Amino acid sequence: MTTSWKDAAAKKREAISALIPAEWRIDNVPSVKEQVDVTDYIKQYLSREELGITESSADQIVEKTTSGAWSAEKVTRAFCHRAALAHQLLHCLHEVFFDAAIADAKKLDAYFAKHKEPVGPLHGLPISLKDQFHVKGVETTMGYVGWIDTFEGKKGTGKERVFESEMLRELRASGAVLYCKTSVPHTLMAGETVNNIIGYTLNPKNRNLSSGGSSGGEGALIGIRGSPVGFGTDIGGSIRVPAAFNGLYGLRPSTGRLPYEGMSNSMDGQNTVLSVVGPLGTTASSLRLVTKALLSQQPWLYDPLVHEIPWRSAEEEHIQQLLQFVGESVPKEKRLAFGIIHTDGVVTPTAPIRRAIKLVTKALEAAGHEITTWSPPSHRVLNDTGFRPWVFDGGRNVRDAFALSGEQMATQVSLYQNEMKEFTATEIAETNVAMRGLRKEYMEYWNSTAKETSTGRPVDAVISPLAPWPAAREAKYKYYGYSTWVNALDYTAVAFPVTNVDKSIDVKSSDFKPVDEKDQEIQDDYDPEIYDGAHVSLQIVGRRLQEEKILAVAEYVGKLIGK
Amino acid sequence: MTTSWKDAAAKKREAISALIPAEWRIDNVPSVKEQVDVTDYIKQYLSREELGITESSADQIVEKTTSGAWSAEKVTRAFCHRAALAHQLLHCLHEVFFDAAIADAKKLDAYFAKHKEPVGPLHGLPISLKDQFHVKGVETTMGYVGWIDTFEGKKGTGKERVFESEMLRELRASGAVLYCKTSVPHTLMAGETVNNIIGYTLNPKNRNLSSGGSSGGEGALIGIRGSPVGFGTDIGGSIRVPAAFNGLYGLRPSTGRLPYEGMSNSMDGQNTVLSVVGPLGTTASSLRLVTKALLSQQPWLYDPLVHEIPWRSAEEEHIQQLLQFVGESVPKEKRLAFGIIHTDGVVTPTAPIRRAIKLVTKALEAAGHEITTWSPPSHRVLNDTGFRPWVFDGGRNVRDAFALSGEQMATQVSLYQNEMKEFTATEIAETNVAMRGLRKEYMEYWNSTAKETSTGRPVDAVISPLAPWPAAREAKYKYYGYSTWVNALDYTAVAFPVTNVDKSIDVKSSDFKPVDEKDQEIQDDYDPEIYDGAHVSLQIVGRRLQEEKILAVAEYVGKLIGK
Repeated sequence: MTTSWKDAAAKKREAISALIPAEWRIDNVPSVKEQVDVTDYIKQYLSREELGITESSADQIVEKTTSGAWSAEKVTRAFCHRAALAHQLLHCLHEVFFDAAIADAKKLDAYFAKHKEPVGPLHGLPISLKDQFHVKGVETTMGYVGWIDTFEGKKGTGKERVFESEMLRELRASGAVLYCKTSVPHTLMAGETVNNIIGYTLNPKNRNLSSGGSSGGEGALIGIRGSPVGFGTDIGGSIRVPAAFNGLYGLRPSTGRLPYEGMSNSMDGQNTVLSVVGPLGTTASSLRLVTKALLSQQPWLYDPLVHEIPWRSAEEEHIQQLLQFVGESVPKEKRLAFGIIHTDGVVTPTAPIRRAIKLVTKALEAAGHEITTWSPPSHRVLNDTGFRPWVFDGGRNVRDAFALSGEQMATQVSLYQNEMKEFTATEIAETNVAMRGLRKEYMEYWNSTAKETSTGRPVDAVISPLAPWPAAREAKYKYYGYSTWVNALDYTAVAFPVTNVDKSIDVKSSDFKPVDEKDQEIQDDYDPEIYDGAHVSLQIVGRRLQEEKILAVAEYVGKLIGK
Repeated sequence: MTTSWKDAAAKKREAISALIPAEWRIDNVPSVKEQVDVTDYIKQYLSREELGITESSADQIVEKTTSGAWSAEKVTRAFCHRAALAHQLLHCLHEVFFDAAIADAKKLDAYFAKHKEPVGPLHGLPISLKDQFHVKGVETTMGYVGWIDTFEGKKGTGKERVFESEMLRELRASGAVLYCKTSVPHTLMAGETVNNIIGYTLNPKNRNLSSGGSSGGEGALIGIRGSPVGFGTDIGGSIRVPAAFNGLYGLRPSTGRLPYEGMSNSMDGQNTVLSVVGPLGTTASSLRLVTKALLSQQPWLYDPLVHEIPWRSAEEEHIQQLLQFVGESVPKEKRLAFGIIHTDGVVTPTAPIRRAIKLVTKALEAAGHEITTWSPPSHRVLNDTGFRPWVFDGGRNVRDAFALSGEQMATQVSLYQNEMKEFTATEIAETNVAMRGLRKEYMEYWNSTAKETSTGRPVDAVISPLAPWPAAREAKYKYYGYSTWVNALDYTAVAFPVTNVDKSIDVKSSDFKPVDEKDQEIQDDYDPEIYDGAHVSLQIVGRRLQEEKILAVAEYVGKLIGK
């Protein structure tokens, strides 16, 4: 077996490529050195019409497709083309089903022609999916060679290439077009995307860097506009990190808001810190569009873990009203209060992240909002405790998956290389109690900020880094604490783009005082020359189940800083 | 240590009794034989005014206390008196803090006198609490001798007699008066209430029978009107069973609706099937009153496990409209569809329960509603899988609690007598996946009933037994499947009273065909002579997080059958 995993991986890799039509092949794919940033480079292969379509945001697209101005087929073909090009430059696709997508798009067009109205709010909108979704007609490998030609590693289940994840029902009922599944790191437990099938997924804005992970294929594909909006999952930053690394918006909803039912996963059944599913897109309003559409399908009747909470417009309206004041000062009674995380005290953000925080703070202050320094309970303790569920089973689940083919484990997930002792029921219960205690403590801190704000209310949202740097360099993702604290608390968070690295401004600080060796090492990994041009993003964090509010805040802050 | 646990228990038992004022002592407490039913017997000790107050429901009481017609002090004193009498007849109290309650009531009266308005919607309403709540000034033993003079079994935590559970904040802010804590079976894992401190809690309507468990003190106390409404917890029926055994209404909300934060528990941190907290009371509207009051305090800002779902009046209004049609046929477009569980196929309900089901079915049909037989996925499988979390830790947590004093374990919880192997992380994860699968399967069945109803909607609610008999006889609680299936699915359920055993009607069936030996044994335990007069109750079950709707349905069905 161990002798053949390379062949099986190569075969699958070639099968993916073979699904790209000959006329969409790039003859001489430029090396990273030849072409670091490929976001403009890709445009030469696309027609003017294709560019117009693919550079529109999801909400702009549905305006056209639900009114009949653009056919679903035309839109679908344009994104299939751009996604095909993207894969050749970035290695971001696991499954390609353009034919099925075009067939679905034609059906949507026929429906529109007959009924003079769209199937639903996502009529004709192409949506990409992380390779954890099961979609009929294609398989799910999740990057494991041993999962090729199986259903989650098992043969003969009858579900192979037939079963669909619950969210596919909501998406199809809303009129969305599914056309590709995107790359993930095997195990899903990494902030970079690498596996033995498609290799390493590159960051389109700066191919020296990672596209992020674990929804790294989504990040790369949407980052290069090969998809307007897509769905990833997040147990430690896996939606927000690739969104951030690619200059996108990404929503990590709280658990129980969107349907995860019927998706493949790692360590399924670990329910101390749950993975959640959520959208990545080029605008905050794209994320609102798809989230609202999903909730209108009442997923709580189909997924036992989804709470019956429809989209609550009342929760966003008071924030949306702020949009009218962009460029001037917000009236006093409408002002918001923000907590700012400059550092979590464990690892210091690098120069471009620090600049992004200053930039956002300044914009918020200029608009009249209140800024307080966020001084919460220890993130170190929170992250250390929140990490335990990652190894409850001592790595057994992922090692079993590797054992299926005998394939090699990427260094990015070497955490699981050695067998660890499984947690006992008592140890798991102790962790659950500890986590609940930490959540309560953090909640009390948040409540206590009412005493510090002039609004009399607790802080509305927290602005935080998502990682110490704008994006990780290969095999240098050494700290997850800026994303995982949100998962530990099950808070709502939206990644949003702020700026781009400018090597002439974002120089290394000469007087940096590290917390410890690791902190120094992470600062050292930042190199302005290598990072030049990379997207710099942050996240806006809200309390549990505040998706409407935090999306509206992200949209507003984005507008304030001109994004 | 083992030689002294009896002394420690006796000392605590006497300390509870000593808190009952001399003038409220019953000189010659009648034996069970002398006085089987004590619900009328108790009245001789109460004044006319006290009777008028204590036989009012919670909603009637707050009408008087929030308008100033009754003082909080007068109401509180009346319930303290009746609770004191109840304890002597039934052994239902663990903690007595009448003095603190009267002091609190006086403060409420002073507030009212000054502001001419109530503190909140529960102004002056006495509320009893299961002995899992921490209340300042008193301790929490949860029936464990080893917990006496500790905080959850630990000494010197600084929390002893000071710390309060989160729900106390909401209750106090709403104006409720807390005055006693009620008995539980040690471990909480039984449908009868027995421990070495207070002994065995009797059923006031028929002292041959159990008051139920684990919120058995609540059931007995409210059953004899020593409390208008109280809070229990439910992981396998522990709110609904004592409600049912005592002819009360009891709400088992879904997880995440009401705050459990800061309560003591058994096997805390087991988070596959969570215990929930909910009210028991004499009317459905009492339960609505307190649930609504709690939610108005935004518990989601104080308990990290509570979802932000305020009381949703829209979810109950269409059901409440049905009340105007009681006595006549409901207009077609307003009709509901009910599923009826006659048997779960594992254990057959005894004669009075079968009669109750017929009675309710007939009333619903007469009102024009639709009745379908509920044919769900196997409850046996559901209950077997749902039981695993009860023994994830192999009984370690409860054995540790017994070991603190060396006390003897009641036969009712002998399940934990022998050390069992702890589940591993992998086994727990497998259980979680299995549970999710069973919940999804049941959900699909429920959805599928839309094809069977003429309303075109899935069944609105399910009518189910809560136990095979009206109440358990001592040490004969042999089957929990009629209550536990609801916990396994995290459904909303309300226990409601239907009728009382009539030994001349509810005879043993002569042609009973048992499923197996256990089924026969349970039928044999039913004896019309012993059960005569006992309350007979059922439960109405709704989908997850449908508290508003199911309370309204319970109120309506209660009215239909004249309760």
